[in-house]
Amino acid sequence: MKEILAVIRINKMNETKKALSDAGFSGFTAAGKVLGRGKGLVDYQLIKGAQDGYQEAISQLGHGPRLIPKRILTLVVRDEKKELAVQTIMKTNKTGNPGDGKIFILPVAESIRVRTEEKGDTTLD
Amino acid sequence: MKEILAVIRINKMNETKKALSDAGFSGFTAAGKVLGRGKGLVDYQLIKGAQDGYQEAISQLGHGPRLIPKRILTLVVRDEKKELAVQTIMKTNKTGNPGDGKIFILPVAESIRVRTEEKGDTTLD
Amino acid sequence: MKEILAVIRINKMNETKKALSDAGFSGFTAAGKVLGRGKGLVDYQLIKGAQDGYQEAISQLGHGPRLIPKRILTLVVRDEKKELAVQTIMKTNKTGNPGDGKIFILPVAESIRVRTEEKGDTTLD
Repeated sequence: MKEILAVIRINKMNETKKALSDAGFSGFTAAGKVLGRGKGLVDYQLIKGAQDGYQEAISQLGHGPRLIPKRILTLVVRDEKKELAVQTIMKTNKTGNPGDGKIFILPVAESIRVRTEEKGDTTLD
Repeated sequence: MKEILAVIRINKMNETKKALSDAGFSGFTAAGKVLGRGKGLVDYQLIKGAQDGYQEAISQLGHGPRLIPKRILTLVVRDEKKELAVQTIMKTNKTGNPGDGKIFILPVAESIRVRTEEKGDTTLD
Repeated sequence: MKEILAVIRINKMNETKKALSDAGFSGFTAAGKVLGRGKGLVDYQLIKGAQDGYQEAISQLGHGPRLIPKRILTLVVRDEKKELAVQTIMKTNKTGNPGDGKIFILPVAESIRVRTEEKGDTTLD
């Protein structure tokens, strides 16, 4: 079992979730906010944040690669579905431009469904 | 050492945290928002979200299993306390109805207490 | 490859991010809110939260060690940079007082850059 952690563009979140759902991934997805780093691109959202007095934005202005707000999406899949999940995320997010994001894969040791107390891959169905 | 990740009902969050505290888990708990998927149940919160113009809710209406807002709780425990943590979460969250949630367990390689630089299980006390 | 998860003081977040950036960690950092537990210290923020009617704060008053709001910072690093990342976080966060925080290290099995489909350590550069 694997945890898949995708750091993607904010405006790709809904499309990615739908693509995963269409591909049969029916489990939970956690979505959070993260800051990624670009490669010298001007980050207008960060500048706007600083103009609005947002402390984190101000503190990063003038520093190395700009912080870019991104979204993080987490889902847990069985081992043999890992490649399908990765391909689904890639298909939706690959534009060829910097900032398309990254995918990290972590091992999951165990999964339990609370209602039935069952363990293992079937808890992901 | 293990990271325990419990996806549970919103209204079980406080009770679960208290149960874990009563069971002696004194470390940190991270709590986040996630969307789980039900099994064809109507999700009134989602419909309300769509009525209120919440983009994510609108984008999911009309799609397969409904997205159900849940909470995610994370804690790190020593290996021999894993079963106690799981049982504590189950006891609080098992109603027998769909949507009781899931528990995922991930391996943790190392733990360090910043103040003392100590490593290992005692950092969790 | 490792995921580093640091639970730190709220007011150390920006300084920690800058220190990591200065140390050459150019990847994403996820920052979230967590509740840690102190050792009998009065938590004024929690009391204020209760006065303001914040449900989670109220529910914890009168219970064991107080819940202390903290921030959680996540980054992924190659194996040989793990120690540098840990030292950087420690240097910024070690005050010698309780509440300096904890660092957890989880194994990462794989990393993929969406734009190029490359895998492995170079995706972290």
